[in-house]
Amino acid sequence: MATLPKYVGLDVGGTTMKAAVVDDAGKAFLSVVMDTNTTDGQDVGLETMCETIRRAMAAAKLTLADIAAIGVATPGLGDIRAGVIIDPPNLKPWKDVPVRDHIAKAFGKPTAYQNDANAAAVGEFWVGGGRGTRSMVLFTLGTGVGGGIIVDGRVIEGEHSHGGELGHLRIDLPDRGRLCGCGSRGCLEAYASASAVTRRAREEMAAWRGPTALKAYYTANDDELTAKVIFDLAERGDECARKVVDDTAFYLAMGACSVIATVDPEVIVFGGGMAAADWFRAKIAEYVVRYGLPYPVAKSTTPVRIAFAELGSDAGFIGAAACARMLTRKG
Amino acid sequence: MATLPKYVGLDVGGTTMKAAVVDDAGKAFLSVVMDTNTTDGQDVGLETMCETIRRAMAAAKLTLADIAAIGVATPGLGDIRAGVIIDPPNLKPWKDVPVRDHIAKAFGKPTAYQNDANAAAVGEFWVGGGRGTRSMVLFTLGTGVGGGIIVDGRVIEGEHSHGGELGHLRIDLPDRGRLCGCGSRGCLEAYASASAVTRRAREEMAAWRGPTALKAYYTANDDELTAKVIFDLAERGDECARKVVDDTAFYLAMGACSVIATVDPEVIVFGGGMAAADWFRAKIAEYVVRYGLPYPVAKSTTPVRIAFAELGSDAGFIGAAACARMLTRKG
Repeated sequence: MATLPKYVGLDVGGTTMKAAVVDDAGKAFLSVVMDTNTTDGQDVGLETMCETIRRAMAAAKLTLADIAAIGVATPGLGDIRAGVIIDPPNLKPWKDVPVRDHIAKAFGKPTAYQNDANAAAVGEFWVGGGRGTRSMVLFTLGTGVGGGIIVDGRVIEGEHSHGGELGHLRIDLPDRGRLCGCGSRGCLEAYASASAVTRRAREEMAAWRGPTALKAYYTANDDELTAKVIFDLAERGDECARKVVDDTAFYLAMGACSVIATVDPEVIVFGGGMAAADWFRAKIAEYVVRYGLPYPVAKSTTPVRIAFAELGSDAGFIGAAACARMLTRKG
Repeated sequence: MATLPKYVGLDVGGTTMKAAVVDDAGKAFLSVVMDTNTTDGQDVGLETMCETIRRAMAAAKLTLADIAAIGVATPGLGDIRAGVIIDPPNLKPWKDVPVRDHIAKAFGKPTAYQNDANAAAVGEFWVGGGRGTRSMVLFTLGTGVGGGIIVDGRVIEGEHSHGGELGHLRIDLPDRGRLCGCGSRGCLEAYASASAVTRRAREEMAAWRGPTALKAYYTANDDELTAKVIFDLAERGDECARKVVDDTAFYLAMGACSVIATVDPEVIVFGGGMAAADWFRAKIAEYVVRYGLPYPVAKSTTPVRIAFAELGSDAGFIGAAACARMLTRKG
């Protein structure tokens, strides 16, 4: 009986790494998780990656002989073409880690390397919120705002591996914009990341005249104020929280409009902790229609769709596996 | 003696159309120009396109037998994939004109169709300001701001033929941004198109306390105030004009920064009437370094380059010919 080719996808994060075997149809076997422990150094890190891959095969009751290729995704800053982690803020103190060659040598398999947000985009494009399309843009909403761009099935990696760094789309002028972690003012991330959402919530509640449950967090429980709390309160009808979330949708739409004017994709997918409620998705779509280029956002018979990601935290390893799969199909 | 394949490139504009035979190395033969006369209707327009192509072959002392393929570029709104002009503001009252099929049938040659700004980008990528690179973004500065994006030698056409509509990159929030022709506020075009430059010049001179030659245009000669006048005065040291041009560089850099965060190209090329003086290019580059993502704009050993277009008004037909060439190489 012929069996479908299988791949291992590994998604390395700052705290944990996650891997699973994924079959040729994008179906994942049982996934495994290990601590990244960056402070133990990058040699230990590379060995942990190998061990996570081994455990993923074991969890799927498979051996290396069953695996066609391996894909690894890591947070930036990396050199995607070279398969090297350069100097990623989330993996300190790692530096210049030759991930792809190390994994390829350790397992003797074709190995793909990708930025984690790009990998998530590839995953969503393959079997998630962007499946069945020709082109897709993913915004990942979390501690920061990231993203990945797929055109005709290929990731826009960028000449300096900075393709799809959508948190740094400019939405406001630098003389009045909010300060971003990159050192500039006016980047989308400074408005729509989780910490930006809580910052804006603090500003709103300070000026809010009516009742709002957010005020319980004003001073005493300030540490407990998270983007999740704000989204939950908005969901339950708190008007101040609702305004903060509405503004978040507005800012994300500003980024989406710029993405439409550059790559004009078939679908724009929002993923990450914040993206869940359908009224939030509808709000983003409403602002995109109001401020975007009329033809692609409304007048076309098939206007750009605004969708949510579907793979959750599995997108990274599924996408890494998809990159491995593309590798075997190139040759 | 083997001769290189040759192509005809035709660039249709709102006022005139221009064509020439282009050889396989990107060298153009003598070009020909005919009036577009859109008001005569689209059937006459299609025949004029055919006549311009015939004259281009005659000007090159060649016959149809010498031509491998034909490429046609027109202003938007078009459906690039279908090869059809849909409803372009610059070609009124034309509507739903099947350009590609008409030309292909008239000459019996493989025919490529492309948006004019995308074609210009392909031309500059082939033998102009972007030659020898893997990825390039072109900003065209004129009555409007347009553009084209090339990644790995391919144009990002977009799902609704709106890829590279860089004039509609958002640089300012819509509650305070300048009004754009698309109906939204805060698009790059509303700050950096020729008419936006003259509008900003009027504002600057009205508030300017020192001497400036711009004031000669304030009321009496208002009609004569063009972006070219402003750039010329800036070149000659007029401080008010210089401020207007400096601000133009700043706004263009805002757009460039968003392009870096999306496609992260090897080079960003500025073309069109305004782009000429090297100090203007240097100003754009300076602002990109100040406000762009640190790695691609500065820290990388090969940071993104800011360059000028080199083909002038020939970029369109050379690019159209390049699209024809790609067509023959696909099969």
